[in-house]
Amino acid sequence: MSETGRDVGEGTEGRRSLVRVHNFSVSLDGFGVGEGQRLEEPFGHAGHRLLEWAFPTRTFQQMGFHGSDEGSVGVDEAFAGRWAAGIGAEIMGRNKFSPHRGPWADEEWRGWWGENPPFHTPVVVLTHHPRPPLEMEGGTTFHFVDAEPSEALEQARALAGGLDVRIGGGTTTIREFLRADLIDEMHIAVVPILLGRGERLWDGLEGLEQRFDVEAVASPSGVVHLSFSRRRPRP
Amino acid sequence: MSETGRDVGEGTEGRRSLVRVHNFSVSLDGFGVGEGQRLEEPFGHAGHRLLEWAFPTRTFQQMGFHGSDEGSVGVDEAFAGRWAAGIGAEIMGRNKFSPHRGPWADEEWRGWWGENPPFHTPVVVLTHHPRPPLEMEGGTTFHFVDAEPSEALEQARALAGGLDVRIGGGTTTIREFLRADLIDEMHIAVVPILLGRGERLWDGLEGLEQRFDVEAVASPSGVVHLSFSRRRPRP
Repeated sequence: MSETGRDVGEGTEGRRSLVRVHNFSVSLDGFGVGEGQRLEEPFGHAGHRLLEWAFPTRTFQQMGFHGSDEGSVGVDEAFAGRWAAGIGAEIMGRNKFSPHRGPWADEEWRGWWGENPPFHTPVVVLTHHPRPPLEMEGGTTFHFVDAEPSEALEQARALAGGLDVRIGGGTTTIREFLRADLIDEMHIAVVPILLGRGERLWDGLEGLEQRFDVEAVASPSGVVHLSFSRRRPRP
Repeated sequence: MSETGRDVGEGTEGRRSLVRVHNFSVSLDGFGVGEGQRLEEPFGHAGHRLLEWAFPTRTFQQMGFHGSDEGSVGVDEAFAGRWAAGIGAEIMGRNKFSPHRGPWADEEWRGWWGENPPFHTPVVVLTHHPRPPLEMEGGTTFHFVDAEPSEALEQARALAGGLDVRIGGGTTTIREFLRADLIDEMHIAVVPILLGRGERLWDGLEGLEQRFDVEAVASPSGVVHLSFSRRRPRP
């Protein structure tokens, strides 16, 4: 905490607003998405394979079937369930929001998630083609912003009301925030498949482990959960 | 077992001679070796980091200090210790044998391991520049062979006396044997570092998981041990 008790990135109680990544999956060969993303295949040739570990969890079941109390409660759920608590805003890349590229042909696309998206917070969508904010049901509002990671983070924090900011992906967005050293906590699920092509999460991040403590735990589902926690200088 | 009870790859008791990989380490971003391999840096800029998990194990301690009964006996040792049992020959790439490239300037180089290498079996060294066999102390003989993976395997099996053949690396050699679908069992240790550059193990192996069952276990040392077992067609 700074001497004034208030600083960029500090919440109302003096707690620092953290920047977190949750439930982001990569293949064993490091691809966060396959080749050939399009409307019918949001993950390209990867299909659903990168998220299969998550679907059975209670958290993901509840996203699909609101109010369901079904779903697994093992280590996959222990990780999956952390994604929403304490989050006041998400930042996502335009390719996570939409299969379209370049200028918007129209503004009819309202995201992949229907009228009540699962975010329930403001969402900053990084795009070179801003458009007016899009207010959805359930508390989600998409804000379209053309900005560098650090500026986008400033805007997201202003929208987050002192809570944490989630970097929601896709691959390029997470990589850019890692390169800019803006991420405090990151949960990556490594899925034991080889995609061979697509977009690599780890490119250009040599030595990343020097900034983070990394813990691994293997799940019976076959994935390995990696937890990156930013190393703090000793007080 | 074929009807004759003897076939290529079958040992004297009818047991199939397996092709195995042990203790091969890759970084989280998939590099099996760093950039800039040379005499002083056999792993290039990776230094010792890919093998640090293994050094404290009893198996590796005994390689360094013959007869030592020190060293760890946890999950790292459980994997490390499997490398020698039942192995009758190793196949290695020329770059694992030597820092030299191209034609041999002389034949004075006798490997990185001194006069009594830890293999204690015949070792087939894949090279486009064959030279006479090199008999070392302790049962290791290096055979220099210019051959495709399947031919090299045939030669190694002939030398292995019905026992299994280990593919000892480096990265390119393992990748080529995987591409040729010649590997039955493979232990890979994933080390939580990002090397950023070097040689990638997983390139060009899309869909590899369809040929193997893959199991992951996280070690307190920080590495994740992956076990690949070839899927057998049901009888």
